[in-house]
Amino acid sequence: MKYKINIEYDGTKYKGWQRLKDNDKTIQAKIELLLSKLLDENIEIQGSGRTDAGVHAYAQVAHFETKDEMDLDKFLHICNQMLPNDIVIKGIERVPLDFHARYSVKSKFYQYKIWNSDIPSAIKRKYVYHISDKLDIDAMKEAANCFIGEHDFRNFTAIKTKKSTVRNIFSIEINKQNEEVDIIFHGEGFLYKMVRLLSGTLINVGLGQLNLTDVKNMLESNEKIIINAAPAHGLYLLEVRY
Amino acid sequence: MKYKINIEYDGTKYKGWQRLKDNDKTIQAKIELLLSKLLDENIEIQGSGRTDAGVHAYAQVAHFETKDEMDLDKFLHICNQMLPNDIVIKGIERVPLDFHARYSVKSKFYQYKIWNSDIPSAIKRKYVYHISDKLDIDAMKEAANCFIGEHDFRNFTAIKTKKSTVRNIFSIEINKQNEEVDIIFHGEGFLYKMVRLLSGTLINVGLGQLNLTDVKNMLESNEKIIINAAPAHGLYLLEVRY
Repeated sequence: MKYKINIEYDGTKYKGWQRLKDNDKTIQAKIELLLSKLLDENIEIQGSGRTDAGVHAYAQVAHFETKDEMDLDKFLHICNQMLPNDIVIKGIERVPLDFHARYSVKSKFYQYKIWNSDIPSAIKRKYVYHISDKLDIDAMKEAANCFIGEHDFRNFTAIKTKKSTVRNIFSIEINKQNEEVDIIFHGEGFLYKMVRLLSGTLINVGLGQLNLTDVKNMLESNEKIIINAAPAHGLYLLEVRY
Repeated sequence: MKYKINIEYDGTKYKGWQRLKDNDKTIQAKIELLLSKLLDENIEIQGSGRTDAGVHAYAQVAHFETKDEMDLDKFLHICNQMLPNDIVIKGIERVPLDFHARYSVKSKFYQYKIWNSDIPSAIKRKYVYHISDKLDIDAMKEAANCFIGEHDFRNFTAIKTKKSTVRNIFSIEINKQNEEVDIIFHGEGFLYKMVRLLSGTLINVGLGQLNLTDVKNMLESNEKIIINAAPAHGLYLLEVRY
């Protein structure tokens, strides 16, 4: 039987989603360890994609297979009692065998949270990226439009790959409410580190360090360009759609 | 010269506001240590009141005196660079010598934050009190009305005192937005642990463990009553008015 789980986590203390050899400080490892123990068989889970060390998720999705049928409400409750309290399984449901947490993804939402004030926030410090200088939100919105649609984002990823680096971004919304600036990305899929590199670029535009022409050049250039990735602790995997 | 400072802190790691002997894990101690170092004289700060271990503040207020006149913007900036990042001084201003952070208080606002869902929150776990069973918000609002106005709150404090235990509460607002339930208290002043005891009582009403008659009895009873204080990590000192 195949099950789909929906997971919220505070990435602060973890080395990211993906299981690593000889290191259990990843979210995947914590969940696999627990499920294997509870179901008394070796369980591997497949996430919708990786998140980097320090990145948070409101709703990561993963699937796993097991031989047993389960009382799902009870199972969910036990999982959350036994998981570290910075990882929560928000939902579990049975899915058809052809469902795949990664390959069946239709689109993903990411949110990047900024605290834009000369005074940092003591309470939110681990969950927002603090920027002292005032961001020009209109300039950021204009630059964000350059990224909408299908583009080759080869300059907006951290690894060389022979696979296609063309991705389709449906929308980028930028909202400001008091000190908080949120950037919400919705796209078919994102390359490794792409959201942090796009966020870093938009922040540089907001600070007047890059203009619209620079951004267009960054997208089109065939030369290697250095782009600042926005730090991990401001990034949230918000939703995965199937 | 006398200065008033406005302080935000994440109380998670501290033993509360108030300086303790032989222990520097209090917010007051951290700030006094820094100010004494920066101003090169022994600085004592006077807060608007104590907050317990684990309680947060969006805007605690304190005053201190020093012989020097200061460049306030610069001083504020240096303070925030040197303070631990879970304490932030949000503002500093010069005040008349007769200003007193505690005795000049006109009123205070406290907020109690609840996460009301069968699923806990991984990301907000340190900043909200998780309650699984559904709270009856209307019942809580009705019970809150019993506390409005001037009452003897002798049963809603954790210490015996010979001083007056009469306090005047101006308003108690209860708001629910998705999983979050906020209780906002506005009053002339509050006794030691009073806001947590009031919050605990309202939560018990919301869970159907107490009714309106019980609450009225708790206010009026001359016998010692056991009341559950809501945990510290859901409580925020929101604003101090002068």
